[in-house]
Amino acid sequence: MSQRIPVVEKILSANDQLAEDIRKRLDAAGVFSYNLMASPGAGKTSLIERTIAGLAGRNRLAVIDGDVATSIDADRARAAGALAVQINTGGECHLDAFMMKSALETLNLDLVDLLIVENVGNLICPASFKLGTHRSVLIASVPEGDDKPYKYPGMYRGVDALVINKTDLLPHVDFDMAYFRRGVEILNPELVTFPLSCRTGEGLEAWLEWVAAGPDGGQARDDRE
Amino acid sequence: MSQRIPVVEKILSANDQLAEDIRKRLDAAGVFSYNLMASPGAGKTSLIERTIAGLAGRNRLAVIDGDVATSIDADRARAAGALAVQINTGGECHLDAFMMKSALETLNLDLVDLLIVENVGNLICPASFKLGTHRSVLIASVPEGDDKPYKYPGMYRGVDALVINKTDLLPHVDFDMAYFRRGVEILNPELVTFPLSCRTGEGLEAWLEWVAAGPDGGQARDDRE
Repeated sequence: MSQRIPVVEKILSANDQLAEDIRKRLDAAGVFSYNLMASPGAGKTSLIERTIAGLAGRNRLAVIDGDVATSIDADRARAAGALAVQINTGGECHLDAFMMKSALETLNLDLVDLLIVENVGNLICPASFKLGTHRSVLIASVPEGDDKPYKYPGMYRGVDALVINKTDLLPHVDFDMAYFRRGVEILNPELVTFPLSCRTGEGLEAWLEWVAAGPDGGQARDDRE
Repeated sequence: MSQRIPVVEKILSANDQLAEDIRKRLDAAGVFSYNLMASPGAGKTSLIERTIAGLAGRNRLAVIDGDVATSIDADRARAAGALAVQINTGGECHLDAFMMKSALETLNLDLVDLLIVENVGNLICPASFKLGTHRSVLIASVPEGDDKPYKYPGMYRGVDALVINKTDLLPHVDFDMAYFRRGVEILNPELVTFPLSCRTGEGLEAWLEWVAAGPDGGQARDDRE
């Protein structure tokens, strides 16, 4: 859905135009933001819970949760101590800038330093819709298998950071880390990666530092295009 | 995308019309068929490998593999001993009846008893597109978490059988089987379920019996609508 038109002036879709407006609004409010994507069950909500707890007293977090149904995820983020808004997409398989705008209107950005947007669980569609966030983050999950970069190249190509979650399960599954990393390297050689386990807490420190660093934490997707 | 129109004559979309034609063609050829859906990494290809091996010498299997990119899955099905065709959808997040028709044209159905269609890894979009198959099967995966029926109701509501894969990981993750099953029960009370582990082989026998039974293995989705 994102447009790739070989002319000097890039023609922006309505979604991309709105995403630019959202970015400006976030910048004006001094809020740094992350678009968190993953397949269902890779650990988006668990990582958000860990991040809220890990940055408590340091950064004020807000969470926008996208799901087809239920408010389970926003409830978990709220219980962990963040401002949280749930978007139910109905049948839609991704968030878009219009949903993002509606959700932002319910948040008091004066109370927020960092905003994490939890996209719908899906390794395909969310990659095509800009939300205006500053960084895109993908969570891979060890039990998903080591071939996912090869099979979902669009998602792996378009992100600024990669969390490799559930490393505590490595002894119990067949996951060839070298093969996985080769697939990532081909698609996105500069990608920052964070192997960690939300269950045990191992490896979380580097991730927390990166998130808390905001603009200093890594190269923005928009700059690389 | 599926139409729910409260009139006596149900108006079929072009996709549904083609799906009906495909069903007739499969019936005429004596081929019984399964649409296998799951999120990325739940174990679709592993289950297909186990099924091919488990039914060797008993039923002749063919596999149609849908993926955004690569032929990894069809290569695995072929190596396991089945006729296999790969569909690369480009960016599309699901198979549809048109892709299914193209793939079928490359298969000699006289050599096939059972056809398994491996849909694109996605818990949302594939539920909306009929392929003409006789049964829809969903694979849930223990490390995905126990809240997936609640969060992806459309998928859980629309299937004829549910495989609960990676049961060997139950001791290593937080997965409340009773909570999971309650969610399934609300959406799809008649659903046949097969807890199993493709890794250890535990629980596979009941699944193999069900697949091999074809029309006698469970109620068809179309009959229930």
